[in-house]
Amino acid sequence: MRKLEKKRCCFNLQNFALYYNRKMKTKKEAVILVVNDDGVDAAGIRVLASVAQEFGKVVVVAPGGGRSGMSHAITFANPLRLRRVHYSPDCEIYKTNGTPADSVKLAVRHLLKDRPISLLVSGFNHGANTSACVIYSGTVAGAVEGCLSRIPSIAFSVVNHDKNCDFEAAKVAARQVIASVLENGLPPNVCLNVNIPNVPASQLKGYKITRQANNYWSETIEMREDAANIPYFWMGGSMQEVDKGRDTDHWAVSHNYVSIHPIDTDWTNKPMMKELRKWKLTI
Amino acid sequence: MRKLEKKRCCFNLQNFALYYNRKMKTKKEAVILVVNDDGVDAAGIRVLASVAQEFGKVVVVAPGGGRSGMSHAITFANPLRLRRVHYSPDCEIYKTNGTPADSVKLAVRHLLKDRPISLLVSGFNHGANTSACVIYSGTVAGAVEGCLSRIPSIAFSVVNHDKNCDFEAAKVAARQVIASVLENGLPPNVCLNVNIPNVPASQLKGYKITRQANNYWSETIEMREDAANIPYFWMGGSMQEVDKGRDTDHWAVSHNYVSIHPIDTDWTNKPMMKELRKWKLTI
Repeated sequence: MRKLEKKRCCFNLQNFALYYNRKMKTKKEAVILVVNDDGVDAAGIRVLASVAQEFGKVVVVAPGGGRSGMSHAITFANPLRLRRVHYSPDCEIYKTNGTPADSVKLAVRHLLKDRPISLLVSGFNHGANTSACVIYSGTVAGAVEGCLSRIPSIAFSVVNHDKNCDFEAAKVAARQVIASVLENGLPPNVCLNVNIPNVPASQLKGYKITRQANNYWSETIEMREDAANIPYFWMGGSMQEVDKGRDTDHWAVSHNYVSIHPIDTDWTNKPMMKELRKWKLTI
Repeated sequence: MRKLEKKRCCFNLQNFALYYNRKMKTKKEAVILVVNDDGVDAAGIRVLASVAQEFGKVVVVAPGGGRSGMSHAITFANPLRLRRVHYSPDCEIYKTNGTPADSVKLAVRHLLKDRPISLLVSGFNHGANTSACVIYSGTVAGAVEGCLSRIPSIAFSVVNHDKNCDFEAAKVAARQVIASVLENGLPPNVCLNVNIPNVPASQLKGYKITRQANNYWSETIEMREDAANIPYFWMGGSMQEVDKGRDTDHWAVSHNYVSIHPIDTDWTNKPMMKELRKWKLTI
């Protein structure tokens, strides 16, 4: 593992005029791929890219705008675009018109197909990705997509929607989790979903290894009428905190712990397989 | 469980001019909610709605067009629309501008908020939803969303992309699985992902209770240039069949069995929780 020396963040979008150069010569050095769902201009991805740079060369490939709630959506019925917006020897930044999962696929299968990727980090998402939000999150999907490509992958979220929020606690946690993943590795079908509570770094209580809380989102569907008196709907809502377990992702961040939740790309409920066999279905 | 008498399918889109009437009086009778990701006009959803009608009153709420590969994407940054396109006492049909998950939310939280939903069925999807496709599928997400709303939910897919394909085997399987779910129920956090092989009903070998195969999608990213010589990309690819297990969803449908795969809405990899605790991370 590389020594944890701090480097200046490359995330400076000065060079918006450069299109991705297809003939650019690639290097064989391993890189860290950075994605998100809040878009390439979000504060969170800049900070996460700066932390990732402490561990190696960074390539950022992220949506051009916000893609929150896009889950694992992919684009195959429309063309995708990929545009370089920054280049330096230590950090390249590309924006796409696709989803977080598309961004990972464009990076892995095209942009970096000749360069090994040592790690994928997704985030920092602005807002918690705990409980059922894990399922809706584009940030988490970015890490799951990396995992499907057999890259050690970590999603990071801060429990704070303010774009000017303090990322110091998030940086402390990300630095430690990244170092541990690079040291220990991850199994092929598991990625990590890390949530950092909204407190100063000095108030972090530590880490909790957690399960996904069985809380669900209860939507409010607000109906309005447009100028032609035709109804339309805005979806809002709140998390229903029905799971009181102290081993959950939601409990951890609510009590100032960093939550580390291991996600499996195999969603099978194994006990239910046994139960279903008792149903004795026959054609 | 209701007697399995066949009824004529209501899925006849004659009344496209009707907007959803907000003041329509609701009935308290339990309904079966039908969704999909191929859109309200797809052949598959018509056939599945006809099967569902054998078990009770049906309400179809589905995207106005194809939403394949949308996974569990939801829409909260744009307005949603909901429009009634058919009404009869036994079957109502609505189309939305949203995703499959949006369609379920609009149905559960607004349209049917005063009517109990006894079952949700999603499909028939045109094309297999096995292996990693489970993660990308809007059809599966429809069932997962129903499960998050504590509704017994089943996703059905036929291993055939032809819109004129023979649905007889799919109908046989759906009828039996729906009857079994209504009889046995499902745990709160589990929905079923059913895949039906592309064979005549007479050649179905039976049912296999399966796990999600650990196969992944290997994309080809084809680069072209638009009229301004700016590159764009089309995403294609093929499933990499690396999982040779005979207990998988992919194996089952490849050997003429109907695959029944129980999906958990909690994606936690529990063995990895133990492993992570050995890392002894401390702030």
